[in-house]
Amino acid sequence: MRQRNKPWADDFLQENSHIVIPNSSSHKNNWHELFGNRNPIHVEIGTGKGQFISEMAKQFPEINFIGIELAKSIIVTAAQKVILSKQPNVLLVNEDAANIIDLFSANEVATIYLNFSDPWPKNRHEKRRLTYHTFLEKYQEILDPLGEIVLKTDNMGLFEYSLMSFSQYGFVLSEVNLDLHSIDDPTNRMTEYEEKFSAKGQPIYRCRASISNKNRN
Amino acid sequence: MRQRNKPWADDFLQENSHIVIPNSSSHKNNWHELFGNRNPIHVEIGTGKGQFISEMAKQFPEINFIGIELAKSIIVTAAQKVILSKQPNVLLVNEDAANIIDLFSANEVATIYLNFSDPWPKNRHEKRRLTYHTFLEKYQEILDPLGEIVLKTDNMGLFEYSLMSFSQYGFVLSEVNLDLHSIDDPTNRMTEYEEKFSAKGQPIYRCRASISNKNRN
Repeated sequence: MRQRNKPWADDFLQENSHIVIPNSSSHKNNWHELFGNRNPIHVEIGTGKGQFISEMAKQFPEINFIGIELAKSIIVTAAQKVILSKQPNVLLVNEDAANIIDLFSANEVATIYLNFSDPWPKNRHEKRRLTYHTFLEKYQEILDPLGEIVLKTDNMGLFEYSLMSFSQYGFVLSEVNLDLHSIDDPTNRMTEYEEKFSAKGQPIYRCRASISNKNRN
Repeated sequence: MRQRNKPWADDFLQENSHIVIPNSSSHKNNWHELFGNRNPIHVEIGTGKGQFISEMAKQFPEINFIGIELAKSIIVTAAQKVILSKQPNVLLVNEDAANIIDLFSANEVATIYLNFSDPWPKNRHEKRRLTYHTFLEKYQEILDPLGEIVLKTDNMGLFEYSLMSFSQYGFVLSEVNLDLHSIDDPTNRMTEYEEKFSAKGQPIYRCRASISNKNRN
């Protein structure tokens, strides 16, 4: 995503530390205290400008959403959306997804969304793809035994890669959709990218992967 | 596939019983004797008019190919192709794939090809799809521990279903390709369907699934 320098971003984030949570690792295993309830936690990795997570929070008030976004100049836009929406069930974190196990304890997360992640198409960048096995290992740790990953993308190469990677790491696919917008799914909330690419007639891919080899208590 | 009544089919098959093998279950665990060598055995389920298997046999003379086709009026066309090609490494079987475990013993098969199988799109026909779990169970039994299933189709629904079914049954995906003809794969041999659909610009899907939970000796 194109980033514009926003010199006011630091001040903005400091003023809105009730939305974009600083020192987020200190809330590991205690996010429910910040939300004030024990509702399930859904995490979006790469929240971008926040349209998906804001609309999901509106649609599912009994789920707590946490959006992770590394780019400071982009998370401020997501924060503005969350402030405007007045939804109490969304928090944001300005962190690197590579550190996700510092943010959540084992089984703390019910669902992880990977929306239009950077495809990193070159082989030498495979390790950076958010479905590379080192990431799957981290997701598996923080997901509860019935938890799932929901991946959406317009990028064929990333989708092909992710299906293989999930399968090779022992995740089980409960949905594979090669043209999401051809079906009527009233629960699908679009990201900014999704609206743009879909309007151009490009197919949107989605899959759901759940843990098969985690001990179920 | 459209079937025309061919009153001469029975006589033709009887005359060519060295190509279309009768009483095929009697060769279970002994196909290598018919081929006269111990080369690996690849099986195509739903061989149709035989273009794929004939060309594969030409391209890979050190692999033994067996084509299974239920429709008598169609397998005669495949047999004619095999006769013309004079390839010694192809045999055909006029059988129902549901009986595949009567034809092959455990570990006897190295690769199974499912090419443009009937998608059976209605939910109530799920059991007839060649990637329904009862079929996967049979494939798993006859495949050797390093064996794989290679599925090609132009049907999006069947492909989505098959990816899920493989994953849910414990197969591991080593390839997922959502537009086979956009890559340069000189080993890809086309079926009659594939030529037709691809010429219309429709994407061809392919995946490879291998056994993960079979004991490897």
